[in-house]
Amino acid sequence: MNMSKKKNIVVIGGGTGTFTVLSGLKKYPLDISAIVSMADSGGSNKVIRDELGLLPTSDIRQCFVALAKESNQTEQLLRDLFMYRFDKGNGLKGMTFGNLFLVALSDILGSQNEAIEKTSQVLKIKGRVLPVTLSNSNLAAVYEDGSKVVGEHFIDEPEHDGKVKIEKLFLEPISKANPKAISAIMEADIIVIGPGDLYTSLIVNLLVKGIVPALQKTKGKIVYVMNLMTKYGQTAGFTAKDHISDLEKYLGKNQLDYVLVNSGKIPGKIATKYGKEENSIAVEDDLGEESFKIVRGDFLNKKEVKKSSADSLKRSLIRHDSDKLAKAIKKLVKI
Amino acid sequence: MNMSKKKNIVVIGGGTGTFTVLSGLKKYPLDISAIVSMADSGGSNKVIRDELGLLPTSDIRQCFVALAKESNQTEQLLRDLFMYRFDKGNGLKGMTFGNLFLVALSDILGSQNEAIEKTSQVLKIKGRVLPVTLSNSNLAAVYEDGSKVVGEHFIDEPEHDGKVKIEKLFLEPISKANPKAISAIMEADIIVIGPGDLYTSLIVNLLVKGIVPALQKTKGKIVYVMNLMTKYGQTAGFTAKDHISDLEKYLGKNQLDYVLVNSGKIPGKIATKYGKEENSIAVEDDLGEESFKIVRGDFLNKKEVKKSSADSLKRSLIRHDSDKLAKAIKKLVKI
Repeated sequence: MNMSKKKNIVVIGGGTGTFTVLSGLKKYPLDISAIVSMADSGGSNKVIRDELGLLPTSDIRQCFVALAKESNQTEQLLRDLFMYRFDKGNGLKGMTFGNLFLVALSDILGSQNEAIEKTSQVLKIKGRVLPVTLSNSNLAAVYEDGSKVVGEHFIDEPEHDGKVKIEKLFLEPISKANPKAISAIMEADIIVIGPGDLYTSLIVNLLVKGIVPALQKTKGKIVYVMNLMTKYGQTAGFTAKDHISDLEKYLGKNQLDYVLVNSGKIPGKIATKYGKEENSIAVEDDLGEESFKIVRGDFLNKKEVKKSSADSLKRSLIRHDSDKLAKAIKKLVKI
Repeated sequence: MNMSKKKNIVVIGGGTGTFTVLSGLKKYPLDISAIVSMADSGGSNKVIRDELGLLPTSDIRQCFVALAKESNQTEQLLRDLFMYRFDKGNGLKGMTFGNLFLVALSDILGSQNEAIEKTSQVLKIKGRVLPVTLSNSNLAAVYEDGSKVVGEHFIDEPEHDGKVKIEKLFLEPISKANPKAISAIMEADIIVIGPGDLYTSLIVNLLVKGIVPALQKTKGKIVYVMNLMTKYGQTAGFTAKDHISDLEKYLGKNQLDYVLVNSGKIPGKIATKYGKEENSIAVEDDLGEESFKIVRGDFLNKKEVKKSSADSLKRSLIRHDSDKLAKAIKKLVKI
């Protein structure tokens, strides 16, 4: 009898990119853990942090939705509710139902962490969603011109010249890793970093005390999904090599085993539009002889993604394709 | 093979009393429909009505909780969430999670009525919760001194002398009955009116166009659960006969088949406390030879109910006992 254990896969990130990769991966027989950044400070997360004294939950909520099974009517309904954003009512407008669900449940159970676990059960999600840390801290950046900004959303949507590079990213105060996130990394067969905004979705997780040592110690292979486009305020003008070099500043040298690089052509019309609206260009693939294996392929979602009020779609017009990404990752895990 | 059909029971009301009777009835093999008033205008219902343009949902929500099965962990959790009231956050404070659930789902499904039905499925409730009407209207009262008040919560918690009697209660504008409420009444074996505040929880339902004709036509037996205590602002100084007489003004003469009257003794200490705090006294049982059968018994909840922020407990310190009431009603249905 060959009862081979399911492979353990860890996805590190937060935001749209993580939603994308999880949506694809959940179709395979994998044991999935999503490690999610907890420094989001915009929109309804601000209310959750400042008025309710809890950790931000938007990224967590998106992972729940990505990993939710659609087999059952009730779970489908709860999934829809989880994504729902109130558009009326003083004080309610802009809040998402999923965040309110987590707020209420945290209060009932007396622990936000327990609320996250219970929600996984209620939504019958495939896998686990793990906050990278259980303590509240702010993301801060010092730029090469010496200026400093505190608050994830100010880094994400900079008010200064977005071409100025980030010299140093850090957490105030420093936070300690969720022990379950550490275990997941240690037991992983493969760890996928990204896709996501290099600083505010990916490196933000590496700043949490304990994460990098675990990544350096684990026997799991580490994969980085190279960004498709540069990001104004974070990686303006960055080539692929620049991305790797900044990531390695935090992760350490020679830690990456694979890098997935898109070679699919971004339609000119969309690229032009994106370039104008977002001040971004396609990341130039200048990788050559490297310490990691390069997996090139068409990982592009060919449908133009319309901007919408649903926050999982808000941020990028050009995105990775869930299924193409998951298929490439699956090959690396050899299932 | 004796496959006798379950008896159909309809409970008409809203508020704490309905919660109490439903909690008891759900333990018996009955097909339960709760017909619930939709004129509540206080607290978070105000936001729901004025800012969100929906029908008030607090009474509906309480019925869901009363009828929810507790067998399954997920439903238990959702039940707890449904009762949860936010106590922090500008604009959130005072809102109940259950109301927000119904608001979000109404928007997703495009119909508040459909949202109520779906919620019944999600919570796997025993029975059905039927809004007495699907249109929004205000409860209004003209008092014997000629003054007029519009808004259920102003009648419930009067700002004028609460001993002045209500001359006439009506809806502005008049609303039409939910066809499903009519069908439930027509198919009922027994219809229980109350317990509940005579005007704002019970008669309010009889004002909806179509309800009284259905009650007059149905073959189902009609039971009224006599109030335990007088209510300042509605029934100050009322005896049992006074209650019947006012109820019959709206329901019509000789419609009642049974009246359940408590004969259990209200502990003196609690009665005194209640009397002081609520300006209420025990309803004097002055019923004699009547057109209906009188069922006297100890229907009293002997535990002193503490006032709490959970709105199902807020209103009365002296309450009916779920199990005693349900047992008496069960006998009338002969199951």
